[in-house]
Amino acid sequence: MDLAVELQPLVTRVEEGIERLLPAASEPPARLHGAMRYAMQSGGKRLRPVLVLASSELFGGAGAADPLPAAVAVECVHAYSLVHDDLPCMDDDDLRRGRPTLHKAFDEATALLAGDALLTGAFEILAGAYSGNARLGASLVAELADAAGSRRLIGGQMEDLLAERSHRASAEDLKFIHLNKTAAMIEASFAMGAMCGGAAEPSVADLRAAGRELGLAFQIVDDILDATSDTATLGKTAGKDARAGKATYVSVHGLDSARILARERSDSAIAILRRLPGDTDFLVALAGSLLSRNR
Amino acid sequence: MDLAVELQPLVTRVEEGIERLLPAASEPPARLHGAMRYAMQSGGKRLRPVLVLASSELFGGAGAADPLPAAVAVECVHAYSLVHDDLPCMDDDDLRRGRPTLHKAFDEATALLAGDALLTGAFEILAGAYSGNARLGASLVAELADAAGSRRLIGGQMEDLLAERSHRASAEDLKFIHLNKTAAMIEASFAMGAMCGGAAEPSVADLRAAGRELGLAFQIVDDILDATSDTATLGKTAGKDARAGKATYVSVHGLDSARILARERSDSAIAILRRLPGDTDFLVALAGSLLSRNR
Repeated sequence: MDLAVELQPLVTRVEEGIERLLPAASEPPARLHGAMRYAMQSGGKRLRPVLVLASSELFGGAGAADPLPAAVAVECVHAYSLVHDDLPCMDDDDLRRGRPTLHKAFDEATALLAGDALLTGAFEILAGAYSGNARLGASLVAELADAAGSRRLIGGQMEDLLAERSHRASAEDLKFIHLNKTAAMIEASFAMGAMCGGAAEPSVADLRAAGRELGLAFQIVDDILDATSDTATLGKTAGKDARAGKATYVSVHGLDSARILARERSDSAIAILRRLPGDTDFLVALAGSLLSRNR
Repeated sequence: MDLAVELQPLVTRVEEGIERLLPAASEPPARLHGAMRYAMQSGGKRLRPVLVLASSELFGGAGAADPLPAAVAVECVHAYSLVHDDLPCMDDDDLRRGRPTLHKAFDEATALLAGDALLTGAFEILAGAYSGNARLGASLVAELADAAGSRRLIGGQMEDLLAERSHRASAEDLKFIHLNKTAAMIEASFAMGAMCGGAAEPSVADLRAAGRELGLAFQIVDDILDATSDTATLGKTAGKDARAGKATYVSVHGLDSARILARERSDSAIAILRRLPGDTDFLVALAGSLLSRNR
């Protein structure tokens, strides 16, 4: 399978969905809507929304619904989390995917509000798109709000910040941070795709579990890339974690062990995926590619 | 009717709902959850959640559901908007309801994340509490996401900021700002209460219209108080709008006209309320009291 060829139509669908479901940049307040679109059109991998679409395609039985709005909602939450994470009071980063971060391209207040609006917009999109299937809509809102909430995504960011400030994080702390800061939204992507595909609850739970493993692998690879790559390749400031004295899988476990841990998690995700019904070749190939990525 | 006596049990229910529905301050990350509770326990009037409860009580027919989670969700969104609005990159305010603002009591990053978490938590509460009535849950999410979104609450804040920066706002700009920054969430409070009470769509629309009028009156009174009251009475910095060169109903229309406009809007809200079914005496009295409040 040529993964890039298989990926392309999914990424195109996601881009079209973003174009269609977000307010036009010209709609008042144009500065706010322009900033939201800037944050969403930043040349990312679109990993999470692609996972939503691909997970949905595994099922597609009776009761299946279009997964695209769910995919766009997940990407809105991801984009908001990056915008707020880049702010001066958080990571204070100037560069994201090779472009100025939102508060550099606009200003801090606009970036704050655009982040807030992307988060709110995610729920607006879910409520609007699935109004004809209230039970599905409610399940999607519950899954996304939980993954993005204070116990998961935001909780992980808070603990990450506290660990950085205290310059002290145990292997357990680090796992908590990765599980919540990164894995939560990847779990939700798999689960929300499965829900749109009409999957039964046991399959949704299996995909959530695969997402957890893959999310952990993904973040360990991020830590490895921060330690071993350069800014031009990454499109974001390299070596930042080490300079900030941040706890990472590389600083806590060493580079070799981090590589082994990433592979273990990735293999575990792939093993869960292979047990699922439907054609999982694409998801397995995508999971494998995340281990060997260079940005 | 003694309004204070009638209000008390509703405020108590709201406080109990907040206590029950928000994560415990001790739950990890304790710093984040402690900050969320600080933001929610700030001695505000609880106007919006009280409006949710009181609007629901007008109906209470078949299909009625407990309005308390909806009331708490609305208050979460209100609290988040104040926390982000107080941040240094926005209004940079040190005082809120007589206490240090969240970023002063904690720090800026924690305040940013706690605001994000309260916004997300609002949808988590709706999804969790109304999971047994998916149609109602989906309607509540749609109403709240719309009111809090980029076209309404956040859009109003963006335009407010732009007007302040440009030192130039027309009467029309000002109305846009008030309609969205303030009235949107009061409209939603009325509408969400009506939905929980099982009201038919025409009654929901009437309450939304009453909320719009009352929200405009409320914000004009806020402008009047900022110009005429003192910091100790308000519990927040008085005279701030004038010093910031901010467009307000007082600066654009003058104090006397602002008072007339506030009364007109309030009367209009009360006229709509009186046409509704059920016992609207409490809501009418509450609306009247907002016109003569001193904080």
